[in-house]
Amino acid sequence: MIFYFDFLSPYAYIGWSQIHALAARHGREVQDAPVLFAGILNAVGSKGPAELPNKRIYVFKDAYRKAHRAGLPPLVPPPSHPFNPLLALRAAAFPTDAATHRRFIDGLFAATWAGGGGIETEAAVGAIAEQAGLVADEVLAFARSEDTKAALRERTEQAIAQRVFGVPSVVVDGELFWGTDSFPDLEAYLAGADPVPKDLLERWTHLRPSAVRKGSLA
Amino acid sequence: MIFYFDFLSPYAYIGWSQIHALAARHGREVQDAPVLFAGILNAVGSKGPAELPNKRIYVFKDAYRKAHRAGLPPLVPPPSHPFNPLLALRAAAFPTDAATHRRFIDGLFAATWAGGGGIETEAAVGAIAEQAGLVADEVLAFARSEDTKAALRERTEQAIAQRVFGVPSVVVDGELFWGTDSFPDLEAYLAGADPVPKDLLERWTHLRPSAVRKGSLA
Repeated sequence: MIFYFDFLSPYAYIGWSQIHALAARHGREVQDAPVLFAGILNAVGSKGPAELPNKRIYVFKDAYRKAHRAGLPPLVPPPSHPFNPLLALRAAAFPTDAATHRRFIDGLFAATWAGGGGIETEAAVGAIAEQAGLVADEVLAFARSEDTKAALRERTEQAIAQRVFGVPSVVVDGELFWGTDSFPDLEAYLAGADPVPKDLLERWTHLRPSAVRKGSLA
Repeated sequence: MIFYFDFLSPYAYIGWSQIHALAARHGREVQDAPVLFAGILNAVGSKGPAELPNKRIYVFKDAYRKAHRAGLPPLVPPPSHPFNPLLALRAAAFPTDAATHRRFIDGLFAATWAGGGGIETEAAVGAIAEQAGLVADEVLAFARSEDTKAALRERTEQAIAQRVFGVPSVVVDGELFWGTDSFPDLEAYLAGADPVPKDLLERWTHLRPSAVRKGSLA
């Protein structure tokens, strides 16, 4: 199954902390896919929580509570937010063995949401790479390459093609699960206990609006 | 505690089915507050799930799964969606005793999400009122009155002033909980076990962006 994420999202951090154990419980493998959340928002014409003042404040508390519930240390925001995640998203795809790869992503998430110094600079990303057992210069050269930039764009476009509209999202057997709140449903799906009937979308997609929102409070 | 809802939202229906028992477990009373979701979206500059094609399809399945998880009958969409909920939202505030009021809201939600014929017409809302033990003509006259229309606007504006950005939302002691996914956190809060430190917002609201989303995929 594919785990789409952007370091920008505290929910992606929480999801990352759970997805491997969840997949292992059902004999599945996690293929993690760093994507640019901003690119997804642009494609679907939506706004991120950080772009809506009321939701931004709410998400601070909600993510703090969900991290607590997930058994993570107290959530600490990065030095600035939203920040530019491109360097980290590109570096995160550096090819290495599975254990090192996972340590590297762990480190990037921890530097973002567990009191680290953020992941916006080459110095920060390089140091996290070294801590994971990688060679900083190799990772940074990889992150700077045009092929790596193109791969991030393609991965983001693949996510959009799979109907992803937010992060984290899991796609398994073509089925989408958005956010950590959907993990119980993802587990039910993996256990063969998804209650959704096969023809639900056929029955529902013909549903037509009888009212369209106007620009003012009626 | 205040339960803000609009019949348009299947999550409001799911939340309605749980909120009274949840409140009772903690010795709290539910004050239900019908509000116009479209008015909230206009105020916060956001889009509803039904307005984003990928999210609309996802929400069909997600709400179906959550209704199943909540022990509700299989979710059946109304004849059209989005629909105009104004008549039902206004009627829902008809003053009566608590038990009748709750039966009436139950009936309006069931007619929307449990295979009923919808709630857009006076005939439909009147029939649901009668089934709840009310007099249809009285309820419809109430729903048509300017005072009732003004009260719905005021209630919606009150919700916005309380930082509500979606439905269902619960506000208790000035604290906001959005969506049924937040109900475990609402329960923890009511039990005095909210992990959020008092100064969280002070610590976080000074957080500044270091990047702003541009109009294209970088």
